[in-house]
Amino acid sequence: MTNQVRISLDAMGGDAGPSVTVPGAALALERHPGLRFLMVGNESVLKPLVAQHPALAAATDIRHAELTVAMDEKPSQALRSGRWKSSMWMAIQAVRDGEADACVSAGNTGALMAMSKVCLKTMTGIERPAIAAIWPTTRGESVVLDVGATIGADAAHLVDMAVMGAAMARIVFDLDKASVGLLNVGTEEVKGVEIVREASRILREQEIPGLAYHGFVEGDDLGRGTVDVVVTEGFTGNIALKTAEGTARQIAEYLRAAMNRTLMAKIGYLFARQAFNALRDKLDPRKVNGGVFLGLEGIVVKSHGGTDAIGFASAVDMARDMAQHHLMQTIRDMLDETSVVVNS
Amino acid sequence: MTNQVRISLDAMGGDAGPSVTVPGAALALERHPGLRFLMVGNESVLKPLVAQHPALAAATDIRHAELTVAMDEKPSQALRSGRWKSSMWMAIQAVRDGEADACVSAGNTGALMAMSKVCLKTMTGIERPAIAAIWPTTRGESVVLDVGATIGADAAHLVDMAVMGAAMARIVFDLDKASVGLLNVGTEEVKGVEIVREASRILREQEIPGLAYHGFVEGDDLGRGTVDVVVTEGFTGNIALKTAEGTARQIAEYLRAAMNRTLMAKIGYLFARQAFNALRDKLDPRKVNGGVFLGLEGIVVKSHGGTDAIGFASAVDMARDMAQHHLMQTIRDMLDETSVVVNS
Repeated sequence: MTNQVRISLDAMGGDAGPSVTVPGAALALERHPGLRFLMVGNESVLKPLVAQHPALAAATDIRHAELTVAMDEKPSQALRSGRWKSSMWMAIQAVRDGEADACVSAGNTGALMAMSKVCLKTMTGIERPAIAAIWPTTRGESVVLDVGATIGADAAHLVDMAVMGAAMARIVFDLDKASVGLLNVGTEEVKGVEIVREASRILREQEIPGLAYHGFVEGDDLGRGTVDVVVTEGFTGNIALKTAEGTARQIAEYLRAAMNRTLMAKIGYLFARQAFNALRDKLDPRKVNGGVFLGLEGIVVKSHGGTDAIGFASAVDMARDMAQHHLMQTIRDMLDETSVVVNS
Repeated sequence: MTNQVRISLDAMGGDAGPSVTVPGAALALERHPGLRFLMVGNESVLKPLVAQHPALAAATDIRHAELTVAMDEKPSQALRSGRWKSSMWMAIQAVRDGEADACVSAGNTGALMAMSKVCLKTMTGIERPAIAAIWPTTRGESVVLDVGATIGADAAHLVDMAVMGAAMARIVFDLDKASVGLLNVGTEEVKGVEIVREASRILREQEIPGLAYHGFVEGDDLGRGTVDVVVTEGFTGNIALKTAEGTARQIAEYLRAAMNRTLMAKIGYLFARQAFNALRDKLDPRKVNGGVFLGLEGIVVKSHGGTDAIGFASAVDMARDMAQHHLMQTIRDMLDETSVVVNS
């Protein structure tokens, strides 16, 4: 792969569709002039919007798609009606056909995962894909997976996720070795579920290059950044992610109310405004927007459906990062090494 | 029960033992002069400490216990060595024998639950106990359970928890009817795990007096206070609780760093100091200290092991509230009504 990374976009996906995806792509292109886009969607809507951004227009091919997958469509239904002809499917297909190095969509998560599985297939040796999120911590950032691709997991799936998450963390954080923890309800070996303990035993016994197994971590280790990668099954991971988002919003609301309560507080706020802005920036969910689908034969990144152009550009950045630094090959190499050890 | 509530204390439990439990009890007694204490622990340690608080000394009986359960002891081991003669066991036993209306311990959670189950037994109709926590929300507070008593749950256990949680919420928040939500990964009926869906179906079909079933809630509904009671199994509940605690700590750390970065921010902090103090107060985990064990034939409240006197006093307040307002009877009444409907 050259320095030029080709991204296919489901330009119609998300709550706001092209009015977010087009300026989002333009923003990502400003940061990374080597990007090329394949925008899939309603041509008559996309053409004039893209034309407003000359640099983007020069770097973009538009491909017409008849259909848009609705945000509330059931995955099975989306697959029935939207296969072949929806903007979502066609954007994924471009990755399968080698026309794009990665795909980004802000559309319906369930439909995107269902279509990605059918179109791209899972990687050899991986039974189920996972969604990985970047989690802001006091130390920096961590990779957390699965935040909602599938519910429940056996030990082998948790081990697969540890390997895939470590591969992603090595790329995102530029590490030789990523530390990995399994989310559990206690740090002592005696506690927790049988499946998590079994996965822990496997990870402890195996030498996986590029992965340093840390052991169990608890919910409060997420924000602490104790490890580079936190692994859990999708139900718990999704609830942990949304609980953290909700808590952040809740505290921001408390803070706003506190700063508005008295004149003294308002004056204080004015003095400290820059500090508050820095804090808001730090808590801005748009900066870490982009769930990476891991375990598929191709790179797909899910943007929040309700994000704006800044958030969508972050998801494009994430896709670019993964493609540029050979996520697929890194995962494959690590999986190969792992299965050798499993079979020995 | 008269206005006088009798609380048995595992006075040796917690990281700091009697140096926290004794002043904590004194503080609770100031707020509720009707309290009577049975303090169980090392008599020669407790006597001089209690004597420092004349009002407490007058309201307290000390009972000598030879043993203290260690904070890191395995539950099975604690039960083997500490049955009959540990301060933890004897404090629970006082509830069983009708000497106390509720028990409070800051000791080892696993050991406290194991001993409570053996000593008090579960309520008729309840297979497994749960631990309920008070969760601060933007609207006020909610009850969340199970935050770690047992791992995994079938539909019947989730329904039991809905009823027990509603009973507790009616007491704590003084409600005729408590709204209840089941924690899930999506609000649409189609998503989520089979067990949670089955519990949802049962709760939707049953008329349980005092309980208004809301449907599914997600992780971010916890901080929002969408419902009075959030029900989930113990693994997910524990991780959600610790994730929220960790996120709150993380944001407090960001805020502290932001307010220390520039002179202007420091000046702003001075002006807004009262507002910051109000915020700190709002986020103070000691104010909602006390996990209530539900589903046992008696009231047991678990205080955080690392708390101070203020936090321990909150746990005593919680135990008092539960005993004074007849938690056991409220749960029994609601369960009776529920089983009638189940069997019809």
